[in-house]
Amino acid sequence: MKAVSTVVFDVNETLSDLQPLQTRFSDVGAPGHLAPLWFASVLRDGLALTVTGQSQPFADIGKALLFSMLDPGSLNRPVDEAVQHVMEGFMSLSVHPDVPPGIRALDEAGLRLVTLSNGSSGVADRLLTTAGLREAFETLLTVEDADLWKPARGAYRFAAEQCDTDLAEMVLVAVHPWDIHGAANAGMVTAWINRGGGSYPEHFTAPDIEVSGLHDLADRLRTARE
Amino acid sequence: MKAVSTVVFDVNETLSDLQPLQTRFSDVGAPGHLAPLWFASVLRDGLALTVTGQSQPFADIGKALLFSMLDPGSLNRPVDEAVQHVMEGFMSLSVHPDVPPGIRALDEAGLRLVTLSNGSSGVADRLLTTAGLREAFETLLTVEDADLWKPARGAYRFAAEQCDTDLAEMVLVAVHPWDIHGAANAGMVTAWINRGGGSYPEHFTAPDIEVSGLHDLADRLRTARE
Repeated sequence: MKAVSTVVFDVNETLSDLQPLQTRFSDVGAPGHLAPLWFASVLRDGLALTVTGQSQPFADIGKALLFSMLDPGSLNRPVDEAVQHVMEGFMSLSVHPDVPPGIRALDEAGLRLVTLSNGSSGVADRLLTTAGLREAFETLLTVEDADLWKPARGAYRFAAEQCDTDLAEMVLVAVHPWDIHGAANAGMVTAWINRGGGSYPEHFTAPDIEVSGLHDLADRLRTARE
Repeated sequence: MKAVSTVVFDVNETLSDLQPLQTRFSDVGAPGHLAPLWFASVLRDGLALTVTGQSQPFADIGKALLFSMLDPGSLNRPVDEAVQHVMEGFMSLSVHPDVPPGIRALDEAGLRLVTLSNGSSGVADRLLTTAGLREAFETLLTVEDADLWKPARGAYRFAAEQCDTDLAEMVLVAVHPWDIHGAANAGMVTAWINRGGGSYPEHFTAPDIEVSGLHDLADRLRTARE
């Protein structure tokens, strides 16, 4: 493994805890278990657009899918207000407990920290500012400026260009195996955050590093560099 | 609209009713609402592989994601047996009630009928044979022979080549907006089956025809041709 200089974080579900989204769904009278289905469906549709050479903002796809998925007859408020309530929840998530110590350790180790999200930079900025971690990050990147979503090779190349760094010196950190796969395919080092202890799917390229949370990552990267 | 000669059906959820899959999940001790999440996740991962220029069989991705998603501690049997039970359920689904009359009306109208699935031809063959509809179909195509998934343009082109027909003379019939979008992008006529009465998401190209079930499709295609 080449020496890593830059750590590139996925944002949604990797840094942010999506659990409170379930409460947003139940707040409006919909089943809480629609939250992970909604999130997987947004990714499915965003990737479908990438496959056909198009791109739309995460939030626009998210809103349209809420209008498709929410059953107006079961809601306790008009559907447009329900959609707004869920989207506001998505915009105001908090970081996982392992994120602050993990980010501080990486920052103290002298690594450059950036984010690369399929969502907007605004969501990442709010998340990290609220957690008191914004200053540890050099820049917050979004694929909206690259016009194609991860795991397309061009999305990771965009990050490398913005950071003026070789892909081989960058580690992509994510909870999503499809993101690990895309980053590996683009030539990056990869670190899979496996908080749930589940198995990594065989159809994707395996990660270089696997950790149970961000708190372990600085140590693991140091070991890998030595 | 050009005269349509060939009707190309998506298979999973368009012809087959996925509802019984929920029972398969609860049979093994998992929540039934994991079924739609699993299906959306298989599509997300299949499309992620298409984005990186790779391809894996639907059933392989499906099995790997079941191993990731099922919590061994909550199951009433070993995880490999639970995975097998769910996958067998997926292989033995039945058609929606509107499918037999819809297929017979299209067949009687003299149209060529084929399927084009992101899944295997075997699943389509079993589904249609059990429903007594197999003979109405000229051929059952799978993207596994094209090495890329719908909505990639090449998947629809593969169908046109196999049928020796222009894409503009073919109508793609599906419940999934991402499939309608891809077919429209490839130059096909499109018919969206909207059984649930939900809204069509704005981020995808709108269908040429919208029907509430297959029973209406022959009439709608005739009207469009006149």
